[in-house]
Amino acid sequence: MDKLPKRPANYVPLSPVGFLPRASAVYGDRTSVVYGRLKFTWSQTHERCRRLAAALVSLGVRKNNVVSVLAPNVPATYEMHFAVPMAAAVLNAINTRLDAKAVAVILRHAQAKVLLVDYEYVRLAHDALQIVADAGAPVPLVAVIDDIERPTGVRLGLFKLEYEALVSNGDPAAELPLLADEWDAVALNYTSGTTSAPKGVVYSHRGAYLNTMGQLLSWGVGNEPVYLWTLPMFHCNGWALTWGMAARGGVNVCIRQNRAADVYRAISDYGVTHMCCAPVVFNILLEGEARRLAAPVHVLTGGAPPTAALLDRVERIGFKVTHSYGLTEATGPAMACEWRHQWDLLPLPERSRLKARQGVSVLSLADASVVDSNTMGSVPRDGNSLGEIVLRGSSLMKGYLDNPEANEKAFKGGWFMTGDVGVVHPDGYIEIKDRSKDVIISGGENICSKELEEVLLQHPAVADAAVVAMPHPHWGETPCAFLVAKDKAAEVCKDEVIAFCRERMSRFMVPRKVVVTDALPRNALGKIEKVKLRDAARKSAVSRL
Amino acid sequence: MDKLPKRPANYVPLSPVGFLPRASAVYGDRTSVVYGRLKFTWSQTHERCRRLAAALVSLGVRKNNVVSVLAPNVPATYEMHFAVPMAAAVLNAINTRLDAKAVAVILRHAQAKVLLVDYEYVRLAHDALQIVADAGAPVPLVAVIDDIERPTGVRLGLFKLEYEALVSNGDPAAELPLLADEWDAVALNYTSGTTSAPKGVVYSHRGAYLNTMGQLLSWGVGNEPVYLWTLPMFHCNGWALTWGMAARGGVNVCIRQNRAADVYRAISDYGVTHMCCAPVVFNILLEGEARRLAAPVHVLTGGAPPTAALLDRVERIGFKVTHSYGLTEATGPAMACEWRHQWDLLPLPERSRLKARQGVSVLSLADASVVDSNTMGSVPRDGNSLGEIVLRGSSLMKGYLDNPEANEKAFKGGWFMTGDVGVVHPDGYIEIKDRSKDVIISGGENICSKELEEVLLQHPAVADAAVVAMPHPHWGETPCAFLVAKDKAAEVCKDEVIAFCRERMSRFMVPRKVVVTDALPRNALGKIEKVKLRDAARKSAVSRL
Repeated sequence: MDKLPKRPANYVPLSPVGFLPRASAVYGDRTSVVYGRLKFTWSQTHERCRRLAAALVSLGVRKNNVVSVLAPNVPATYEMHFAVPMAAAVLNAINTRLDAKAVAVILRHAQAKVLLVDYEYVRLAHDALQIVADAGAPVPLVAVIDDIERPTGVRLGLFKLEYEALVSNGDPAAELPLLADEWDAVALNYTSGTTSAPKGVVYSHRGAYLNTMGQLLSWGVGNEPVYLWTLPMFHCNGWALTWGMAARGGVNVCIRQNRAADVYRAISDYGVTHMCCAPVVFNILLEGEARRLAAPVHVLTGGAPPTAALLDRVERIGFKVTHSYGLTEATGPAMACEWRHQWDLLPLPERSRLKARQGVSVLSLADASVVDSNTMGSVPRDGNSLGEIVLRGSSLMKGYLDNPEANEKAFKGGWFMTGDVGVVHPDGYIEIKDRSKDVIISGGENICSKELEEVLLQHPAVADAAVVAMPHPHWGETPCAFLVAKDKAAEVCKDEVIAFCRERMSRFMVPRKVVVTDALPRNALGKIEKVKLRDAARKSAVSRL
Repeated sequence: MDKLPKRPANYVPLSPVGFLPRASAVYGDRTSVVYGRLKFTWSQTHERCRRLAAALVSLGVRKNNVVSVLAPNVPATYEMHFAVPMAAAVLNAINTRLDAKAVAVILRHAQAKVLLVDYEYVRLAHDALQIVADAGAPVPLVAVIDDIERPTGVRLGLFKLEYEALVSNGDPAAELPLLADEWDAVALNYTSGTTSAPKGVVYSHRGAYLNTMGQLLSWGVGNEPVYLWTLPMFHCNGWALTWGMAARGGVNVCIRQNRAADVYRAISDYGVTHMCCAPVVFNILLEGEARRLAAPVHVLTGGAPPTAALLDRVERIGFKVTHSYGLTEATGPAMACEWRHQWDLLPLPERSRLKARQGVSVLSLADASVVDSNTMGSVPRDGNSLGEIVLRGSSLMKGYLDNPEANEKAFKGGWFMTGDVGVVHPDGYIEIKDRSKDVIISGGENICSKELEEVLLQHPAVADAAVVAMPHPHWGETPCAFLVAKDKAAEVCKDEVIAFCRERMSRFMVPRKVVVTDALPRNALGKIEKVKLRDAARKSAVSRL
């Protein structure tokens, strides 16, 4: 049994990039990508990606070099998910909601060799590159992604290379490097970019391949899906569905922004069957004139737990929601609330309560558990006993790039520690009870409260600071800052503090509320009691509504 | 990127066996297996498998030892798909239609350490073991699988160990060996067992895992399937759906035989949603009183190409057929005819014609192609140009056990050579035009014509022999033998030849028709022109109907 060797025919390194040549071979004449008046087939997408990969190689991109992209859900972002690893490079899709400083931190940490930037973010890229250059760090080559929908007033001016020119100049017949090891990196996704020690999550080809298979299975994506890109591709590579649509030969419907009118128009124009989004998108879709869908649309939601009431409202207009739970380190969704037919018979509030649970591990994970983080033993399956959610399996990240300390903390006793607190119900379904203490999720974006606190402490009038989540009707949560003034007699100007933050962090991170207090509540060990602050924030939010 | 090490948390060897503990954790209270009055949940199945694995270890079973099973689709056969590899051993499920000689050849070649045998096959096992013992080869330990449905007249007598006793004596808390390498063998399936050089196909854990994921995706098996075991588990481990049902937390409905009444009863009693079978089972279901199903049942068919007329008839009574193509070496289905929604609008004959094509590669394969086997270049996608179907991907077998010659022939130029001849249609779908010259598929069982010819040549009156496929209304095909007598003047008794074969081969292999001829047609190089013989057989079959 052991003497049989691995051969090129029966041991092919697992890679999600391989779904593209297969799609070109077996779904070649079908639509791959639509975007406004643009439309490609899978064989065209394959050729365009080959050309772009060849162009990157000819620009000097080599194995393990990082190619960054700063763009919305346009065809170029989709194509880079294949073209960049086809050049043996690592794709780094940057959150477009970050500010120039955060983008600069990422570009430097990733040592990006090339940056592709959408016309809309040319100014942001320019400012970020200036910061990189000012620090004396190497500046990546930049190419601009133009767009048939670019308003006439917007100029590309600043950069010389242009994406479409790269594609058309690339040789589609060029020999591209072959993937030899499925443990090689395919993508680099930052969970945080504002501090000096950013966490860059590295995905292996193996992990991304397995997660793609797992997502398609957990969500039950069948043949010929028509997939609407309401989830940013820069969030865990679109929860692996960038690669997943190639695996399924689906249609990628690209839209620039999640405006309700655009989403509803795309759904009816293209017969959308599937989309993913954070619950905040539901708010957008329910605002104004919420329509009834002509045919059901399957929605995978996650990033933040949706309320049962919200689930109820979107399901009423025709969305079929699957609730999932994931994190960047798990290459996207790690659990999904697999629906049981018998639940169909329950009253709606009960159904929504069951659906709001995070559920069971996706098939690509070997295991998920809830453990006492001291003993690492599983908690009882009683729906009450709290523990930390831990994961294990080949679809997890390789680790954090150049951050041994974060890796040591994250991997423990054969598990990946999520930092999230949950329970296991008697039926085996996991439910989150308290997320990682430091994270505020606003509109599906994770905000690290610690980073905000560091910025606040830089303010000359601030002696002590703590930031917690405050409920928000649209964004789900928003940061609320509690401050102690250095000079108790002097008044701290809240607006001035907010302006101070705005200069130093991405817009979505800025605290919406600032509370000045005499002292922060601390326990006997001197640790800030955030539970109390969260309660205070919750009450103040409720009273405001 | 390269400095990030593999860790126990993020590099877990891929294995289909891992679907069982996951099923126990997340689907624990759901039904795993039903068989007559027997019923288990996934947590019970997990415990039973742990016990059986521990029992096998305590019997001396070690890594890479082969544990064989000779049984129909009963719960024990299902459980062994997990328990045997949990003991680090290799599962060898033997075709129960073979004769004692063929079973003996397999037991010897596999060096089986343990044989588990169903009460129905005690006599067959006894005879096979006698042959093994007579040859002075080591004889495996035997345990009998008893059955609540065993007729009172049937005795187990011959063997001492009993399956249920093994399970109950096994320690569910015993430490079982951990899988360290996903390339390790998980199963051994024989494609042929009558000759002295049997082809034992070895599956790796990795290949079986990937194929399971691929099957579930290609066939679109959603949550909570109720799966009826009409496909023998000894055929490529039930096309990987043994493991697949654990992955999905489905219900395995076991039946002993594919009698029409049993199949229809199971469908209505358990609400069957899915089943697999060779087209011959359709004939069984359509004979007598074919019923209309109350709810649609998804059927994956393969093993032999179904005729468009047959597809038409079974779909009319409520089966939703997906047509697939596979072979033991591909760990089961390698292609499936993925249905396109636009085809729904075509007239039925056209739909059936499209569905009778073998289709596109499953997702777990990296590639499938049709090539000129001399140049290894792809044939044009014109639906006309013939070539050999070749496959590549990690779900293929490790290779043939102890058969370097067969391995050399099978793996060529980075491909696995199927021996089947096909075309590629302009839409990328592959269609088989002529199967491997040596294979006759009768009732879903492959018969190697070469082996039959070798037996026929042993007959004292036979000078020359060739066996080809003859169409058969029930079995699809059946072997037709063409003989040349040694003494042209003397008459060869056809019945005597058939009786001669019956003593020397499994019943399903015996030629149904014997034609005595003056000479076999040979080409200039002396090679028998089987095309001509197949034509003759076809004509004689048609004239008989």
